[in-house]
Amino acid sequence: MGKKRFLLPVEEVDISAVKYQPEPIQAPHLTGFMLRLFVWLVETPLIGSLVLSVLKRQNNVTQLLWSTVIPEPPMFRPEFPPQEQESGIIVLDEETDPPNRLEPALECLTSYDPSKHWNSDSHSSFLYWTIRDFAHAYRSKLTTPSDVAENIISAIENSSNSKTPLHLLITFNAEDVRKQAAASTQRFLEGKPVSVLDGIFMAIKDDIDCLPYPTKGATTWMHKVRAVKRDASVFARLRRCGVIFIGKANMHELGLGTTGNNPNYGTTRNPHAIDRYTGGSSSGPAALVAAGLCSAAVGTDGGGSVRIPSSLCGVVGLKTTYGRTDMEGALCGCGTVEVASPLAATVEDIMLIYAAMSGSSPDDRISLHPAPLCLPNLSSPHNVDALQSLRLGKYTEWFNDVICTDISNKCQDVLNQLSDTYGCKIMEIILPELQEMRTAHVVSIGSESLCSLNPDCEDGKGVELTLDTRTSLALFRSFSAAEYVAAQRIRRRIMHYHMEAFKKVDIIVTPTTGMTAPKIPTSALASGESNYEVSGYLMRFIIAGNLLGLPAISVPVGHDKQGLPIGLQLIGRPWGEATILRAASAIEELCSRTRNRPSTFYDILSSVEVLK
Amino acid sequence: MGKKRFLLPVEEVDISAVKYQPEPIQAPHLTGFMLRLFVWLVETPLIGSLVLSVLKRQNNVTQLLWSTVIPEPPMFRPEFPPQEQESGIIVLDEETDPPNRLEPALECLTSYDPSKHWNSDSHSSFLYWTIRDFAHAYRSKLTTPSDVAENIISAIENSSNSKTPLHLLITFNAEDVRKQAAASTQRFLEGKPVSVLDGIFMAIKDDIDCLPYPTKGATTWMHKVRAVKRDASVFARLRRCGVIFIGKANMHELGLGTTGNNPNYGTTRNPHAIDRYTGGSSSGPAALVAAGLCSAAVGTDGGGSVRIPSSLCGVVGLKTTYGRTDMEGALCGCGTVEVASPLAATVEDIMLIYAAMSGSSPDDRISLHPAPLCLPNLSSPHNVDALQSLRLGKYTEWFNDVICTDISNKCQDVLNQLSDTYGCKIMEIILPELQEMRTAHVVSIGSESLCSLNPDCEDGKGVELTLDTRTSLALFRSFSAAEYVAAQRIRRRIMHYHMEAFKKVDIIVTPTTGMTAPKIPTSALASGESNYEVSGYLMRFIIAGNLLGLPAISVPVGHDKQGLPIGLQLIGRPWGEATILRAASAIEELCSRTRNRPSTFYDILSSVEVLK
Repeated sequence: MGKKRFLLPVEEVDISAVKYQPEPIQAPHLTGFMLRLFVWLVETPLIGSLVLSVLKRQNNVTQLLWSTVIPEPPMFRPEFPPQEQESGIIVLDEETDPPNRLEPALECLTSYDPSKHWNSDSHSSFLYWTIRDFAHAYRSKLTTPSDVAENIISAIENSSNSKTPLHLLITFNAEDVRKQAAASTQRFLEGKPVSVLDGIFMAIKDDIDCLPYPTKGATTWMHKVRAVKRDASVFARLRRCGVIFIGKANMHELGLGTTGNNPNYGTTRNPHAIDRYTGGSSSGPAALVAAGLCSAAVGTDGGGSVRIPSSLCGVVGLKTTYGRTDMEGALCGCGTVEVASPLAATVEDIMLIYAAMSGSSPDDRISLHPAPLCLPNLSSPHNVDALQSLRLGKYTEWFNDVICTDISNKCQDVLNQLSDTYGCKIMEIILPELQEMRTAHVVSIGSESLCSLNPDCEDGKGVELTLDTRTSLALFRSFSAAEYVAAQRIRRRIMHYHMEAFKKVDIIVTPTTGMTAPKIPTSALASGESNYEVSGYLMRFIIAGNLLGLPAISVPVGHDKQGLPIGLQLIGRPWGEATILRAASAIEELCSRTRNRPSTFYDILSSVEVLK
Repeated sequence: MGKKRFLLPVEEVDISAVKYQPEPIQAPHLTGFMLRLFVWLVETPLIGSLVLSVLKRQNNVTQLLWSTVIPEPPMFRPEFPPQEQESGIIVLDEETDPPNRLEPALECLTSYDPSKHWNSDSHSSFLYWTIRDFAHAYRSKLTTPSDVAENIISAIENSSNSKTPLHLLITFNAEDVRKQAAASTQRFLEGKPVSVLDGIFMAIKDDIDCLPYPTKGATTWMHKVRAVKRDASVFARLRRCGVIFIGKANMHELGLGTTGNNPNYGTTRNPHAIDRYTGGSSSGPAALVAAGLCSAAVGTDGGGSVRIPSSLCGVVGLKTTYGRTDMEGALCGCGTVEVASPLAATVEDIMLIYAAMSGSSPDDRISLHPAPLCLPNLSSPHNVDALQSLRLGKYTEWFNDVICTDISNKCQDVLNQLSDTYGCKIMEIILPELQEMRTAHVVSIGSESLCSLNPDCEDGKGVELTLDTRTSLALFRSFSAAEYVAAQRIRRRIMHYHMEAFKKVDIIVTPTTGMTAPKIPTSALASGESNYEVSGYLMRFIIAGNLLGLPAISVPVGHDKQGLPIGLQLIGRPWGEATILRAASAIEELCSRTRNRPSTFYDILSSVEVLK
């Protein structure tokens, strides 16, 4: 039994007096035998419950969710107060067919000058081409989708056959890629490409349905018990635009991890340093884009799974507002924290993919009342004014709570540049109850994931999951229904605090992650690892995007002393993708001088044919 | 481990082929020592879990919520598809002060003819006066609120001092009643009553905050750990209209039961037969209205708690649409199934109280998008046309699944009369997965109640609850978070089936309860009872109103052979209170000849002073 605690009603909390509480991380790093032992322990009836109960008490979970009077009613999914329309934006009609949305989307981009793009050495291969580079090349008959396909196929096969495979894809079918590319090539021959995305190569995370591929979610068995009947909604939209799908990208098993460790299909390696993790769970999508093999990819983000690997791999990762994309056909389609979202090498490519793939589910249209889909008009002369009026909120103690000051310093440098160049204001904010927010998030995502997995786990598939996943599931099983409801009451508090912050600022800025790409312990390759300390650093700034459904974007802003990418995160108001995209684009321009490309990768891809 | 089952996606379910499944009720009836033993068992660690696990498996709860693939995403609270505005209604502005809404509300009622009301013997005392009777009497100076107050105070005191106390109120303060009545009398003297509700006496269920009274929720300790700071929202609205509050009405402890059994403050006795239950949990509100002591009362309904006692006591009970009333200041303010709602002797009084007390919470206004508050215009000549066009849906096998055919026959008679008199159509419908609906409901209401109670139970108050409540809480503690989420997936299915029915019909009709007022076992008075069979009969037709948040009303339609009241339930579309109120009013008129008043009560109240 515990002593009853009270939380003040949110309106009575004096936010200005709140003290920053560093995140307590007290958990052993487990690999190999110790990890196996721990899984045995937590899965053993009675003993397991006891162990988990002690762990939950040590981490104040029980105290918060059982013994605390939380005055607010639960908020079971993000509920957004009405938002003012952003200025300087172009509204896209969600009802129109995705190819038709891309015309107005293109008008939002700054003009494309081929001469600026086509006289450098970087275009001797298709690597790192943007979507408009491909579109120009196809329309100018500099190359065809089929030619590019051959390049990509050999790059992927080279990588797979190399001494240290990068483990980019879980399912790859060269013939299917060739077939799609031939169809696209034919459309160009006939002068009838369906959109600017026609012939654009993309990878999709393995938890999103894409015909004719199985959806494994990086497990060894999911595809055996769950048939893919049609393309997932988000992917169907992209396919209608002519996108060529290169395969199911690697991921952390079931998305339940932040490193991308994967004993089933191999751990994806970071193109910037192949002895390091990509971050996860969308490891494959981030690595493919970072390696320059695709302009863009689609991942899912329920706890940073798009933003974390984007940050660690030096690419752009957008987490859309909850409900902006349709989760039909994604493995965890029952969640209140997860969205399908794009990763790309540039903000402009993110904008195009975002425009094409977005569209709320019919249920969400009824219950969430999404604001219109819009993009910032970067080509308008008023873009600079819009940037000038931006107020960026920074919670300095949180911002600086990173493993190495390289990260906070680099992020601060960029904010200073932004302020100097455009006149945006950087303002101090305070966000209370960050630890409570993390607890509410893990209870939510855990319970919702478990609900989807339970029928198969009950059916005996639980033991065929990785040890890392089994550790997580044992924890998730320990959550009671009343704890779940209590977590939702916390959600309403955290939403209040963030909406209070958004009365003062337009964007909340943080580093994306509290550390750059961690090393892959050799001992973790075969049977995985459980490392809550690393997870803590990787997820430190991530949660508001998921628990509150806020849009957020990670933009590369430079590198640490070891040359590893650093990402800056911009968190926007509900439905406020346009505002963070505008700021991200400005940041990208400011950082373009410092941008580098992973060198390790060029060796691996050395045999890729150059542009004919 | 269980074999994985699959539910078909709802769109693929052939509803017309669904077979009715009678509700399986297999549970022992426990009182006295056996109940005490059972509570000890389920509260003992390990053994308790084991017992509950067996019970849950026997009742298919585990199979449904763990081993079944439910294709739909969860619906955590009722999500309503957009509804067409009903015709023949008057819209009340929710933003206006409640007294100002009552003017248009009065215009919806048929004209009031004092000569029809004031020449019968029934008006020799204030008993069974309607709101407009009081309003007329006050304005014609036939009596004053202070005079009526004295009558009510002596009636309540007589009842308390009688050999068989009726246990109507948990907290009663004659001086406070006199003070309120004096203020109202003064307003009439000055010719400035604030509304038609000025001087109207009402009781409020003990789980709704009313200053200066404690809120005990019928427990022995709640008021010691939870202070009442202000009137609950719903009651504050009524108070602004001049309502006189007579005390906190009795209830089943914490609302967690359907009989009104109450070892803490005495079990409320049914005015129609004092050896029988009133039904619950709003036992006191229903009995007070049935006894004629108040024109109306306010209860809460999370699992039939307004409708069940209304049916068993022969009064009208409205369960409003989820989110129509503000739950701020009610004990379980965190639920997804519960509303505060009125009980009254007549439909017109329900309409007036409903007009005054309604108003969504600020949070719900944002997230639920309530349709405008409206009433049927009964005074319009088009009312008959509106009645004629009504289509009533009846699921005959369900409708007839009652303990005694008196109930279904009487309900059917009324439907026939309605059809003969007005030409409404009675249409056959089928509602699949009724048992799954019940499971989803108990998991939802149980987990949400437990969340609110946990801090106090952890603090040692659990053992101070009644044995009945402790049995329920032990069950609720066994629900896991993933089971809760699975229950919400079921909720989306059930909503679909009901919305499909509402494409064909305007109202779903059922008996309100599957049995009339059950006897109070003498053995249950001191320490309560656990009787799932009775609960099953009482809740048989109740759940859609709560799990789906649909409005529903119980109207008395006659009596069984033992003279016990029978209620007919009308379930409406989301926000469709006006439609069911219109039909209820027509039914009330058709049944007025068969209406009787409880005779037992007159003896108890014999010393009440008659009108001066």
